[in-house]
Amino acid sequence: MEIRSIDIEAYVADVGRRARAASRGTARAATAAKNRALLATAAAIRREAASLKAANVKDLAAARAAGHDPAFVDRLTLTDAVIESMAAGLEQIAALPDPVGELLNLRFRPTGIQVGQMRVPLGVIGIVYESRPNVTIDAAGLCIKAGNATILRGGSEAIHSNQALAALIREGLRGAGLPEDAVQVIETTDRAAVGALITHPEWVDVIVPRGGKSLIERIAREAKVPVIKHLDGICHVYIDDGADVDMALRIADNAKTQRYSPCNTMETLLVAHGIAAEVLPRLGRIYADKGVELRGDARTREILSACGIACVEATEEDWRTEYLAPILSIRVVAGLDEAIAHIATYGSQHTDAIVTRDHARAMRFVREVDSASVMINASTRFADGFEYGLGAEIGISTDKLHARGPVGLEGLTSLKYVVFGHGEVRS
Amino acid sequence: MEIRSIDIEAYVADVGRRARAASRGTARAATAAKNRALLATAAAIRREAASLKAANVKDLAAARAAGHDPAFVDRLTLTDAVIESMAAGLEQIAALPDPVGELLNLRFRPTGIQVGQMRVPLGVIGIVYESRPNVTIDAAGLCIKAGNATILRGGSEAIHSNQALAALIREGLRGAGLPEDAVQVIETTDRAAVGALITHPEWVDVIVPRGGKSLIERIAREAKVPVIKHLDGICHVYIDDGADVDMALRIADNAKTQRYSPCNTMETLLVAHGIAAEVLPRLGRIYADKGVELRGDARTREILSACGIACVEATEEDWRTEYLAPILSIRVVAGLDEAIAHIATYGSQHTDAIVTRDHARAMRFVREVDSASVMINASTRFADGFEYGLGAEIGISTDKLHARGPVGLEGLTSLKYVVFGHGEVRS
Repeated sequence: MEIRSIDIEAYVADVGRRARAASRGTARAATAAKNRALLATAAAIRREAASLKAANVKDLAAARAAGHDPAFVDRLTLTDAVIESMAAGLEQIAALPDPVGELLNLRFRPTGIQVGQMRVPLGVIGIVYESRPNVTIDAAGLCIKAGNATILRGGSEAIHSNQALAALIREGLRGAGLPEDAVQVIETTDRAAVGALITHPEWVDVIVPRGGKSLIERIAREAKVPVIKHLDGICHVYIDDGADVDMALRIADNAKTQRYSPCNTMETLLVAHGIAAEVLPRLGRIYADKGVELRGDARTREILSACGIACVEATEEDWRTEYLAPILSIRVVAGLDEAIAHIATYGSQHTDAIVTRDHARAMRFVREVDSASVMINASTRFADGFEYGLGAEIGISTDKLHARGPVGLEGLTSLKYVVFGHGEVRS
Repeated sequence: MEIRSIDIEAYVADVGRRARAASRGTARAATAAKNRALLATAAAIRREAASLKAANVKDLAAARAAGHDPAFVDRLTLTDAVIESMAAGLEQIAALPDPVGELLNLRFRPTGIQVGQMRVPLGVIGIVYESRPNVTIDAAGLCIKAGNATILRGGSEAIHSNQALAALIREGLRGAGLPEDAVQVIETTDRAAVGALITHPEWVDVIVPRGGKSLIERIAREAKVPVIKHLDGICHVYIDDGADVDMALRIADNAKTQRYSPCNTMETLLVAHGIAAEVLPRLGRIYADKGVELRGDARTREILSACGIACVEATEEDWRTEYLAPILSIRVVAGLDEAIAHIATYGSQHTDAIVTRDHARAMRFVREVDSASVMINASTRFADGFEYGLGAEIGISTDKLHARGPVGLEGLTSLKYVVFGHGEVRS
């Protein structure tokens, strides 16, 4: 669609008003209707695999012509496996319990009224994301199930893929008797559309940005509506004095090397002074064998160099860096207090774990480390909506208000107060 | 304290850093220590009543000299009754259960880890308020109980009163072994301090503005940290076809006339067409007897004028106005759908009530009216933290994320994920 820049604000306003109107329809939709829409879309995705790939080919050609690197083109590609996983993902969402309508804490008050809280949809969710077209399906599916309308603004490089996917979702909504405008894709690649989308609380109740840090920083800075987000995943594992050494090795290995790129991968290892000489040589060997570059403080380097394991000097910057790569910073700390202080100074409030045998220190770590996920004797890699049993996740939040940690269906809802009376008035 | 304008940012930064440091101490404080601080402050308030009034006299003299109106001076005055209610309020907060440390939904996952959510303090709460000095005590008390540090920025006209009150709170904190900096009062009346306070997420986790609409609008517009707020309370009562007429009269009377100034007072009455001719004459008489000015649509005026009850024509503006005064707008609607549509168009998502005998329509109203509090057969005046059983409230939120409706201790906390493992790693 060709839209002159001067019309962007009016175009987004129209999309926003349609979304707000549609959200009233989705908010009162029956569970069965929402599930029918999700399952019909899943079927349509499988049926239209060939035409989805044809739309995707246009995007891929443009991306290659624009000189995007192979990793970018890879993320943009709709393979058979990606198409099947989108369809299967919708079926999983359909199988989840409907979060809407749950009534919590309903209690009689001395005045005779009964007060409780009802879980209801948030309203309109704006999703701003980069090149992965499967986000179109995953995000729309979660929003539909939670009774919300969605406005999707994907990367401009995925515009044809996203429009093709959105057409199938709208077909699914229509077939289930739900308002088509419950899912809309912004049909202009003009960046001004993002600015309009994130600054109008009358159209959009919350923005979920998915993508690189610079995109998320820009949205957090400019938004006038609430944003569910995380910027960094500088995750720590702290190996306490007296920890089970085999357990510590297993967790520290898994937290770093199971995958390097996720936000819940460990970036800094903290080791108590009393156990460092025992665990660091064995851990250093594991990392060295897997090609992980080590950057340590003086004590770490002393221990590792004595065993012939390479470890460069960690700078102040290392403690603040999310490598997303086979690099690990290591620091020897006096004990729990210094570990907690290090995490408070350098962490990103995402996910931090302690390996310990000591109950009191375990519980202090859990209570005092101010992160979205805090773990005892488990790998940070578990910080994930599926692993936590949420069924799916729309993202991870490191903010403290509303949804914190992996955000599933409940994070896309709101709790309002309901009062059931019998004619009571206030005296 | 004299502070040059150029130093304001540095001054607020220092306050912010102290608050952040103190919040680590309050977050791990024992329930008994927090209660000791609250009870000691209550005792100190009673003991120092004379010196509090002496400090207050300075503020009152300055306010009169500045030409503030009697209502303003009234809100600023620390009477014996206000002093006693501050002390009693702290004792009530001490008696509430500690919200911190609660563990919810702890469940084993197939991997062997146990996942749950722990309630923890938010961190640092900024309170920006106008002339009532009792907010200093109420807000600080709630923040202490929930394990938070607080930065208080009261109206410049209350500076002496607020400083005297803050000194007593800090005495109470010190005596209980808690960090004094857990409660700080901004000691400059320069408005730039508010700007600094609301734009630094590294110091402040959430801002709660208490005061007039223009203050709250300014803060919501300029804040870079989350704000818990409500702007308007345009509350509706809808009298449904077939409602119990006596109940409808009782609720519509109480919702409007029990007090005119609270935010949960009804501002617009909606009446179903089929019952209007029966209820409006009787209701009109009640309002007329109490001196409530009525502004109605054509059908309302037709019914009321036939009984000789004065009712001016309501304008579009009336439907959007929070009168906070003995004025009521009235509209006759076709039925439930039109009532819900009116509330969606003109309401402020605060508190709305239906009076009905019909179960299906009652439940549709509760589900579809997108307000912080939705009521069946009860007066809107019940929308209040004490009436809901929260024990106390720091304010009312009409936002949909995090705390919605009256905000008590739980609204000043956050839920983080905790994982209890036994050495599990991700495969």
